[in-house]
Amino acid sequence: MSSTFGTLLRVTTFGESHCKGVGAILDGVPSRLPLSESDIQPQLDRRRPGQSRLTTDRQEADQVTILSGVENGLTLGTPIGLFVANKDQIPGDYQTMQDIPRPSHADYTYQMKYGIRASSGGGRSSARETIGRVAAGAIAEKFLHELFGIDIVAWVSAVGQIESSAIDAETLTRDTVDHFSVRCPHEETAGRMEKLILQLKEEGDSIGGVVSCVCRNAPVGLGEPVFDKLEAKLAQAMMSIPATKGFEIGSGFSGTRMKGSIHNDPFAQAGDGLMPSQNNSGGTLGGISSGASILFRVAFKPPATIKLPQETVDFTGAPAVLEAKGRHDPCVVPRAVPIVESMAALVLGDLVLRQKMRG
Amino acid sequence: MSSTFGTLLRVTTFGESHCKGVGAILDGVPSRLPLSESDIQPQLDRRRPGQSRLTTDRQEADQVTILSGVENGLTLGTPIGLFVANKDQIPGDYQTMQDIPRPSHADYTYQMKYGIRASSGGGRSSARETIGRVAAGAIAEKFLHELFGIDIVAWVSAVGQIESSAIDAETLTRDTVDHFSVRCPHEETAGRMEKLILQLKEEGDSIGGVVSCVCRNAPVGLGEPVFDKLEAKLAQAMMSIPATKGFEIGSGFSGTRMKGSIHNDPFAQAGDGLMPSQNNSGGTLGGISSGASILFRVAFKPPATIKLPQETVDFTGAPAVLEAKGRHDPCVVPRAVPIVESMAALVLGDLVLRQKMRG
Amino acid sequence: MSSTFGTLLRVTTFGESHCKGVGAILDGVPSRLPLSESDIQPQLDRRRPGQSRLTTDRQEADQVTILSGVENGLTLGTPIGLFVANKDQIPGDYQTMQDIPRPSHADYTYQMKYGIRASSGGGRSSARETIGRVAAGAIAEKFLHELFGIDIVAWVSAVGQIESSAIDAETLTRDTVDHFSVRCPHEETAGRMEKLILQLKEEGDSIGGVVSCVCRNAPVGLGEPVFDKLEAKLAQAMMSIPATKGFEIGSGFSGTRMKGSIHNDPFAQAGDGLMPSQNNSGGTLGGISSGASILFRVAFKPPATIKLPQETVDFTGAPAVLEAKGRHDPCVVPRAVPIVESMAALVLGDLVLRQKMRG
Amino acid sequence: MSSTFGTLLRVTTFGESHCKGVGAILDGVPSRLPLSESDIQPQLDRRRPGQSRLTTDRQEADQVTILSGVENGLTLGTPIGLFVANKDQIPGDYQTMQDIPRPSHADYTYQMKYGIRASSGGGRSSARETIGRVAAGAIAEKFLHELFGIDIVAWVSAVGQIESSAIDAETLTRDTVDHFSVRCPHEETAGRMEKLILQLKEEGDSIGGVVSCVCRNAPVGLGEPVFDKLEAKLAQAMMSIPATKGFEIGSGFSGTRMKGSIHNDPFAQAGDGLMPSQNNSGGTLGGISSGASILFRVAFKPPATIKLPQETVDFTGAPAVLEAKGRHDPCVVPRAVPIVESMAALVLGDLVLRQKMRG
Repeated sequence: MSSTFGTLLRVTTFGESHCKGVGAILDGVPSRLPLSESDIQPQLDRRRPGQSRLTTDRQEADQVTILSGVENGLTLGTPIGLFVANKDQIPGDYQTMQDIPRPSHADYTYQMKYGIRASSGGGRSSARETIGRVAAGAIAEKFLHELFGIDIVAWVSAVGQIESSAIDAETLTRDTVDHFSVRCPHEETAGRMEKLILQLKEEGDSIGGVVSCVCRNAPVGLGEPVFDKLEAKLAQAMMSIPATKGFEIGSGFSGTRMKGSIHNDPFAQAGDGLMPSQNNSGGTLGGISSGASILFRVAFKPPATIKLPQETVDFTGAPAVLEAKGRHDPCVVPRAVPIVESMAALVLGDLVLRQKMRG
Repeated sequence: MSSTFGTLLRVTTFGESHCKGVGAILDGVPSRLPLSESDIQPQLDRRRPGQSRLTTDRQEADQVTILSGVENGLTLGTPIGLFVANKDQIPGDYQTMQDIPRPSHADYTYQMKYGIRASSGGGRSSARETIGRVAAGAIAEKFLHELFGIDIVAWVSAVGQIESSAIDAETLTRDTVDHFSVRCPHEETAGRMEKLILQLKEEGDSIGGVVSCVCRNAPVGLGEPVFDKLEAKLAQAMMSIPATKGFEIGSGFSGTRMKGSIHNDPFAQAGDGLMPSQNNSGGTLGGISSGASILFRVAFKPPATIKLPQETVDFTGAPAVLEAKGRHDPCVVPRAVPIVESMAALVLGDLVLRQKMRG
Repeated sequence: MSSTFGTLLRVTTFGESHCKGVGAILDGVPSRLPLSESDIQPQLDRRRPGQSRLTTDRQEADQVTILSGVENGLTLGTPIGLFVANKDQIPGDYQTMQDIPRPSHADYTYQMKYGIRASSGGGRSSARETIGRVAAGAIAEKFLHELFGIDIVAWVSAVGQIESSAIDAETLTRDTVDHFSVRCPHEETAGRMEKLILQLKEEGDSIGGVVSCVCRNAPVGLGEPVFDKLEAKLAQAMMSIPATKGFEIGSGFSGTRMKGSIHNDPFAQAGDGLMPSQNNSGGTLGGISSGASILFRVAFKPPATIKLPQETVDFTGAPAVLEAKGRHDPCVVPRAVPIVESMAALVLGDLVLRQKMRG
Repeated sequence: MSSTFGTLLRVTTFGESHCKGVGAILDGVPSRLPLSESDIQPQLDRRRPGQSRLTTDRQEADQVTILSGVENGLTLGTPIGLFVANKDQIPGDYQTMQDIPRPSHADYTYQMKYGIRASSGGGRSSARETIGRVAAGAIAEKFLHELFGIDIVAWVSAVGQIESSAIDAETLTRDTVDHFSVRCPHEETAGRMEKLILQLKEEGDSIGGVVSCVCRNAPVGLGEPVFDKLEAKLAQAMMSIPATKGFEIGSGFSGTRMKGSIHNDPFAQAGDGLMPSQNNSGGTLGGISSGASILFRVAFKPPATIKLPQETVDFTGAPAVLEAKGRHDPCVVPRAVPIVESMAALVLGDLVLRQKMRG
């Protein structure tokens, strides 16, 4: 296990889906920042199951408590403990899966690596593990916004084969994103996505999707070459989220098909500095933020736990048919939006502190 | 700067393109491993410029010296110092670029972050920085192969819009890959790719591409959830290579368009364990290696330094036209092949050591 | 703040003396270890205030809850969350000290570093912060003992000018140590120490002391030269405990007065290996455990918070007389015994895991 | 092996006593600092053998080369490579010691941990390993002095039973220290120390000693509680130096014998802040620098390699008499002075950068 992330802003998460609870310790937050649970709860509410028909029917309030690091509404500069109790458990849902490792799920590898695994729900590979990240990320976002004016907004840009047409990442707000249950801020596309998800839920199947994210107003200079380049840490952060299969920044894979003369972003004067006049680079040059918006996309596979019967083998190697019980998301991307935002905030929060010591 | 990577197997690189030389310290290599410069040099030779008409005409021998950590042909378990002297420098090539930051290059961000930058060549953002990685990676590869039987092979799977048809990753060898200058192991495709690259070189333009990579025979259990998942560390490693814009594992972005019932990899019996019977997951489940081949792809943008005139501004913001001089690669992917292999080896080497301490 | 310690076994502590509670996350514990709160509580009980007349009268039950990482009495290999709620708070005790920084206390430096500090009790500089360490250390001790047979016993070897005569560290048990309130396992000396402490408590003054510690049965090979030598990590661990002023291993400062011909520990045959025939080295050679018992000593200053009036200045620089209220320990060493043991266990636990990956 | 130290200012050392050379990579040095080899060489000259009759007769020029990170006399903010070639090797000196592990030396533990060891000289446990630290520390010292006005001076305060009378640490300079070969800045004491060392050299024996160190003008606020407290990182740094057995800060072990009412350092007004009016605390409160001088002492044991015959056993356990050949120091403390200074500079350099990122 390696449950700690960051150099100066350091998050450590803990908790399985079915123990006392889940949470995180966030160390390195600047002191004297106004902070209360109400700064954190909204992102947890956007992440929790049961928000809409598109997600699992499991209901969890996911109420956060600040355990430490804050007094009289101000941060002390000391580690902030965050805790969310576990509640709505139906262990029986997982009994079939005790003997049969779910295809494309971590049941098998956890059992092989640790010789044991949580009796239900996926343990640390469960989406529930991300609660600690989201709570910690909400705090990082708060100081990024208040101290540096940085804004982070993610949205669903694809569900299955349905891709949203162009979104103006420079002006997009979370309110606009949340106007649609599927969190794709384009009405017609959102409608088609929602229909597809509901249909697959009905069928007991699942579908993948893409979350896009923009970080605006990041100052020039964030990112520590060569191994902690901004895009490298973002990639690690995003690929550590359950169910992710890909990451791209700026032009990404489509940039591989372009000529340099087209792909290159010429500079233009902007204020008393320069600014790229287009943004194929996605806001970073040589691993360092350029002042342009940081733009990246994260690929999520279809959830592995589906109700449709699957022909596979059990842990002994004997043929078996798995029909997963329980309540699972047919598509993770709507709920992944705040998770992506939070991991981006944890990366930027750390890099901002690492940069601030200069000059 | 953050020039160190890894937890138990730790590489630290140093060197600009135009100082005394470049190199790396690799700490944590198991003791009593037979090792000499001749184990390292071949990968450096595959990385060096001037190998074929497809790459820059710059000639660098890039001869490695082992400075420490080896005695009588055996590793001592102590840090291995690796050094490659710099030679073929033509500083004059870079004079124009002193005043005009190259579009989509790190000139601007290095200057802004550090208030200074190497007078030529890109400094630490130069491809030359990867020499230390390749030398260290060659050592990691050697112990991965000798102690665990792990094989790593990368190849060029796309140049611009030309994509290779399916390659059998289970049997591919480096010899086959190196049979073609462009390192795409498919004759007809390789021919078209080479033609395209030569044409762009002629035009003073550049083009992007994709490097694919397979790691075979990795044992089950590598990867440290939640933040050091196998795919998360691979993503960080790959996105720390200059000019990368994207990373995907297994089905990657194409997996986002699939249903779970299709995407899921059912298990089958294999020896005295299980094995996924298809490999959309790309060899990892829940961030832990499953025993299946680890398969990933890395997107490289077109090189930023091109001879074609570019309309941009200089550091003062005044309009300027940049016509880069010097000798630059029209396409980096052929030379990126050993870099991708080396970074994969450094990731697996670290995770193998972190796993070995268990049970 | 830097609240995380360790490379493979990693503890992260959180909590002030007067927030919701204190605790720790311990990541990297081997899986399938039997574990319950009853394995942890005894060391917390040895640490808690109010155990005897020698300590503060403050009563705190310090009951630990395992939040995560354990199911059906076995560790899962996932991070173990540990929590102890805060209770017996009398904030009024600290009001005087709001304006006057206590001499030789962290009030001043916390205020200067963070621009804010916990309104009472010392916040993270409070002895209460060590609860998380002790809880985590108890788990480390358990696996060190069960998997490797390692034993750790600390005791009070000096209070003020009263030093215990020689203790046989090879056979000493915690029961023997705990037979005396002052935790010096020598009856006559313990009596004098207790009398001194009670006298100083009566006078409103305080006194320093020394805790000695032995770690028995550690295998040869623990310690990672050059910066994570066994004695270097022990020194960091011990000097991170509040109120410590010194650390020595083996002959320590007295060894500086010896000739090499006397100080050197000749080897003797032992089983199928060697063993030093005396132990001036304190169980480590070149930063690596030698198989001999690891022996070290930690200096604790007299507690800074005393009832006697002290002439000092307030935060504005104006002369002031401080008479601390509240209930404070006249001497920390009796309660420091389990803290020293726990930090030793966290160091050895980490080094055991880092070594296990070899050979 | 763990050859890297520091969080933002990170040193990685490499090299054995008998390979191509030794050195270090120092990453995180602020950019635009004037730097050349002549800033580094003086401390290496103070560390090298053969300086006076008090040290080994081995002659090594230990000339440093900067490999990277500097251009036109200014640092680039990139990793600084430092290299010193090995020269004066007489491998024959070490042949006896191949079969007989030196008592109180790392021969045995290296062999057991790694299953191999450098054929001569102690490999990474050799004093020669400290060259990289001294070179890197000289750079850290330079920016601590130029950017923050911090001064570091160490001196020999004891050799065997000879202790220097009080030294005024507030005004002591390196010139004064270097006025005496033994580096004890007190004429009469220095004379006696030198006589003792020469006598033991004559006898083929060795003797221990103590190095004291002061860091002046460190700003308030350095140190990262709880595990990276200033004294905790200093302790790790010092106890990682070969032959160290103890560390104490401020009153150290003598403070354990004092009452709080005497030990406590009252505050006084100083400029627009406060300052402790005495310094039993040694410049740190709660792990954070207080503005007072940082004062600490390091215990060095007598060198293990002596010419006097020692009755011990060989690697097979058979009785053997060891008479070490070669040229060894009879007392390490005079040459340890720049090593202690350098490690102090590396600790402060890192903590200064970690603190600078705050408000």
